[in-house]
Amino acid sequence: MKIIQKPREMQDTADGLRRAGKRIAFIPTMGFLHEGHLSLMQEGRRRAETVVASVFVNPTQFGPKEDLSSYPRDFERDRKMMDSIGVDIVFCPTGEDIYPRGYQTYVTVEEVTLNLCGASRPHHFRGVATVVTKLFHLVKPHVALFGNKDFQQLVVIQRMVRDLDLDVEIVGCAIVREPDGLAMSSRNTHLSPEERREALSLKRSLDEARDLFRSGERGAEGLLARVRGILSSQPAIRIDYLKICDPDTLRDIDPIQDRAVLAIAAYVGRTRLIDNYVFPECLEEGR
Amino acid sequence: MKIIQKPREMQDTADGLRRAGKRIAFIPTMGFLHEGHLSLMQEGRRRAETVVASVFVNPTQFGPKEDLSSYPRDFERDRKMMDSIGVDIVFCPTGEDIYPRGYQTYVTVEEVTLNLCGASRPHHFRGVATVVTKLFHLVKPHVALFGNKDFQQLVVIQRMVRDLDLDVEIVGCAIVREPDGLAMSSRNTHLSPEERREALSLKRSLDEARDLFRSGERGAEGLLARVRGILSSQPAIRIDYLKICDPDTLRDIDPIQDRAVLAIAAYVGRTRLIDNYVFPECLEEGR
Repeated sequence: MKIIQKPREMQDTADGLRRAGKRIAFIPTMGFLHEGHLSLMQEGRRRAETVVASVFVNPTQFGPKEDLSSYPRDFERDRKMMDSIGVDIVFCPTGEDIYPRGYQTYVTVEEVTLNLCGASRPHHFRGVATVVTKLFHLVKPHVALFGNKDFQQLVVIQRMVRDLDLDVEIVGCAIVREPDGLAMSSRNTHLSPEERREALSLKRSLDEARDLFRSGERGAEGLLARVRGILSSQPAIRIDYLKICDPDTLRDIDPIQDRAVLAIAAYVGRTRLIDNYVFPECLEEGR
Repeated sequence: MKIIQKPREMQDTADGLRRAGKRIAFIPTMGFLHEGHLSLMQEGRRRAETVVASVFVNPTQFGPKEDLSSYPRDFERDRKMMDSIGVDIVFCPTGEDIYPRGYQTYVTVEEVTLNLCGASRPHHFRGVATVVTKLFHLVKPHVALFGNKDFQQLVVIQRMVRDLDLDVEIVGCAIVREPDGLAMSSRNTHLSPEERREALSLKRSLDEARDLFRSGERGAEGLLARVRGILSSQPAIRIDYLKICDPDTLRDIDPIQDRAVLAIAAYVGRTRLIDNYVFPECLEEGR
């Protein structure tokens, strides 16, 4: 497994791979890897000859009061995990490598960033779209893989790739969960045992909404009330948002007619977690 | 000479050229070509095996009160000119091809767009940066050529390419002028004979500023006063801006210590023209 820090070396390496006719799969991460990341890398392995993963805690997608400094990091652990599943190249630039002095260019995606996390995290998706554009230019992938947990991020990147004519296939992959249902997240490491237990109510509330939907409920308010009731009974949980949206435009919808996503963001203690459910289950891998 | 309208076909063609090891030079234009454009295409010819030019009057770089609808167009004439000098591929998409329904992604370059044309044409450079990013993704050039007349545009694109790690060499080429000194521009076609005569004062005022500089003047105010005096004596001319700036940051400077650009934008009748002079002559081709 090759480790590359410098953008220019990454770009030259990608160029060489392309000239040699190799197909490149790319998984961008912020490190502190979990099974969700590894499942993306394994899917990349199935889809291309060369798997490149990046580890970069991107400062431009954190707000001034957010958890950039406390975001968990452990490169040695990440490196071993990636090595063990056959990642070919790890790209791990520094902040200065990606945003040198004088940096001033940003990619913004407008409508699909207005709702959900975009509403409570201004500039977050500008940071995501910008760094993913840069990483695509450096890694030159044929296919890039993202988890469905960060549902809005996936929609933003799909929209951006289409709008900017980036020649990259975007694949969204199923949420990977702990055995008890908690969606895998690097931020789970911050949860106390009590918070960890309360955090299970996110998935439980999504399951309840799914059952209510299956029993015939189509009204967004009815479905969301059920979710709100479950989350509100947990003392450590503070809801950031609960929404039912069109999965393409991310506009609120009510009632559900065709496709829809129920998205949750909530603080569990001081840790912000997200989860979602797509009903009816229309979002297959690689939507 | 091959003519391509559809983005997907352009991208596939570019991909094929790259796979075959061909070097691609790219000249983006808004059509109604003149000797300035042709000189860029000839320079492209010297630098690559395949020369691609685009003809696209980009709506997102025009303000609501600007001359999008009256911008001159004559594709048949353009086609013949490009054919005669050996352009290999002309890419001429429609507005709908480039900005389909639901389009919502933009590239912004911040500091270098604040002054000069960026100040009087809000969103102009957002439109330029966005369309050039898209065209680069579709044409996949190794090298792209731009004229120094649109000096700020060249600086914005250089900055954007560096910031977004686009793997394209940007070459700025010398301003091409009519025999009497008027900088070539598609908009010159709008000038009446009287306006055409008055428009010569742009170049004349730059020459005077150059002579004043050579005689020792370093103060921006002194140099700009000379330019203003010459332009103000022309009844059809209304100055939009006169500035002396650092050629990298485009911030105003006074006095000139090292490198500087004197930039003029002025309405001649209803036609907005720009011109500039870099002193000392530090901006060689391919800066």
